[in-house]
Amino acid sequence: MAMGEFDLIKRYFEQPQIQGDDSVSLSIGDDCALVSVPDDSWLAITTDTMVEHTHFLPSISPEDLAYKAVATNLSDLASMGAQPKWISLALTLPKVDESWLERFSQSLLQTLKNYNVTLIGGDTTKGTLSVTITAQGIVEKGKALCRHQAKAGDLIYVSGTLGDSAAGLQQILSGKRAVVFDEEFLQQRHFRPTPRIALGQALVDIAHAAIDLSDGLNSDLGHILKRSQCAAEIELSSLPLSSSLLNLYECTQAEQFALSGGEDYELCFTLPPENQTILEARLKNLDVPCTCIGRIVPAFEKEKCGQFFIRFLRDGQPMEYSPNIGFDHFKE
Amino acid sequence: MAMGEFDLIKRYFEQPQIQGDDSVSLSIGDDCALVSVPDDSWLAITTDTMVEHTHFLPSISPEDLAYKAVATNLSDLASMGAQPKWISLALTLPKVDESWLERFSQSLLQTLKNYNVTLIGGDTTKGTLSVTITAQGIVEKGKALCRHQAKAGDLIYVSGTLGDSAAGLQQILSGKRAVVFDEEFLQQRHFRPTPRIALGQALVDIAHAAIDLSDGLNSDLGHILKRSQCAAEIELSSLPLSSSLLNLYECTQAEQFALSGGEDYELCFTLPPENQTILEARLKNLDVPCTCIGRIVPAFEKEKCGQFFIRFLRDGQPMEYSPNIGFDHFKE
Repeated sequence: MAMGEFDLIKRYFEQPQIQGDDSVSLSIGDDCALVSVPDDSWLAITTDTMVEHTHFLPSISPEDLAYKAVATNLSDLASMGAQPKWISLALTLPKVDESWLERFSQSLLQTLKNYNVTLIGGDTTKGTLSVTITAQGIVEKGKALCRHQAKAGDLIYVSGTLGDSAAGLQQILSGKRAVVFDEEFLQQRHFRPTPRIALGQALVDIAHAAIDLSDGLNSDLGHILKRSQCAAEIELSSLPLSSSLLNLYECTQAEQFALSGGEDYELCFTLPPENQTILEARLKNLDVPCTCIGRIVPAFEKEKCGQFFIRFLRDGQPMEYSPNIGFDHFKE
Repeated sequence: MAMGEFDLIKRYFEQPQIQGDDSVSLSIGDDCALVSVPDDSWLAITTDTMVEHTHFLPSISPEDLAYKAVATNLSDLASMGAQPKWISLALTLPKVDESWLERFSQSLLQTLKNYNVTLIGGDTTKGTLSVTITAQGIVEKGKALCRHQAKAGDLIYVSGTLGDSAAGLQQILSGKRAVVFDEEFLQQRHFRPTPRIALGQALVDIAHAAIDLSDGLNSDLGHILKRSQCAAEIELSSLPLSSSLLNLYECTQAEQFALSGGEDYELCFTLPPENQTILEARLKNLDVPCTCIGRIVPAFEKEKCGQFFIRFLRDGQPMEYSPNIGFDHFKE
């Protein structure tokens, strides 16, 4: 039996109210959702689309797809220091496959519950499989972490480890089934990235600029540099690389994944050195290692032609490095 | 030259600030947009997707596609009585066609400007042509027009004329080029529906329930009835039909378009009779005719089985009528 659009939404996507959250006055089932934003907060809004064949393989499980679509959007909120609150889901499906929908919706709702986020509405349509989520969060007015606020002298930090997701993707693309722990770890890092929400909120007040690493460190740090009109020095020996990555790949390849691989969804942020002690104290309450990998420096001469620039050091010595510019679906 | 995702957004979709609107603290170019919602307002949020072949033919002009994607989302805000403020755009494109993008973006930005709406962000991805817009507006807390607030005794009104869009679509699907004025009128009503924003805002305080007619009067009024646990009587001779529709179609066919055709994007609302005088006074300042087509009555016995119900009258006499239930992309 073919189900109608309205039944679909009601059957699979109605969610119990998030406990202790009275911000939603009207949810799924009307022309709009109605929510309240606290007086002292900005509303932070982000949208991301995942399209079959472009962003994921048809072999992805519905659970992983739902998880990742939510996680990547929440990661954008995390990078602003915002608290995620609500999402809208636009789901395009080639056909109504009830078993697939059951698995997709269960994973989506469970992920939202884990982050205290409410699904407030959306649209289901027919076409090539695609998931667009618009996520909304709140952050105290004037306190959001933006890309344009890095200052020369800031230390550059990243959370977690870098390059795992790109290495995991390479394995998946080569058709390799994860056999040993390290392979499983890397592939899970690709399918199940962790949005660094608590870290983002802990950085409000102490960090200057932040971004989440969706396209690779070179590309994403580049956005901060360009918007802040600064340059950066990165110490390659400081890049945090997981033991799984180093067990399976040569160091050079591992560094390449860390610099140019996408979809780690770790945070990269810049911190004035005088706030290092506060950062370390706050990190003790969070289960997220953060590593200082370099510093922001004044724009080099080259900058005047409009190019952002990262100078790479190894053990303190400048070196030549030609990073690729990160991931871009329209550049082939 | 293939353009990158980032260049695309910057080149085509950056928009001058809306004059007199200081609600946007951060727009395109960071991980999130940041906006301020007035303390006394709810945030109203809606999402709609338009997919090629499902919602529009490949022959649609980029100008009409952009216009309609915006208009249909603003129509959802209108039906809540909300003032549109911001949209996010998720645009999926098979390839970068700069001429198409130029035309699409110009039409999008012009439409937004006409309604004082800011494009605050989005995502461009590669895949089958598809446009998802998440639109956000504001409405005074407690004052939104919802589907569940209709009361027995309310008069049922619709704005504009009904059925034009469905008739226009039938012409377009049959490959008919508009030659005479009436054909042109109907096809334009399909491609360029008018979101009834000022009307929606004028109804706040005086109407009980409202919905926009995207799937056809039977289906959409049905949503109000179901959510409000009421029934309705509709006088067929009162349905507002345009002279263009009546010039080109038999009366029975015209009524069928009005009842079951979708995409008119007119408002259907219920009004307590004591507010009729206020409505008429407010309509004098708006260029939108509204027609009373019936009234809300207590739920019939049948309702107890969970079916909403509309009783049709002609010249006051009950008649048999089997409306189809409106448009649904997953029901075939």
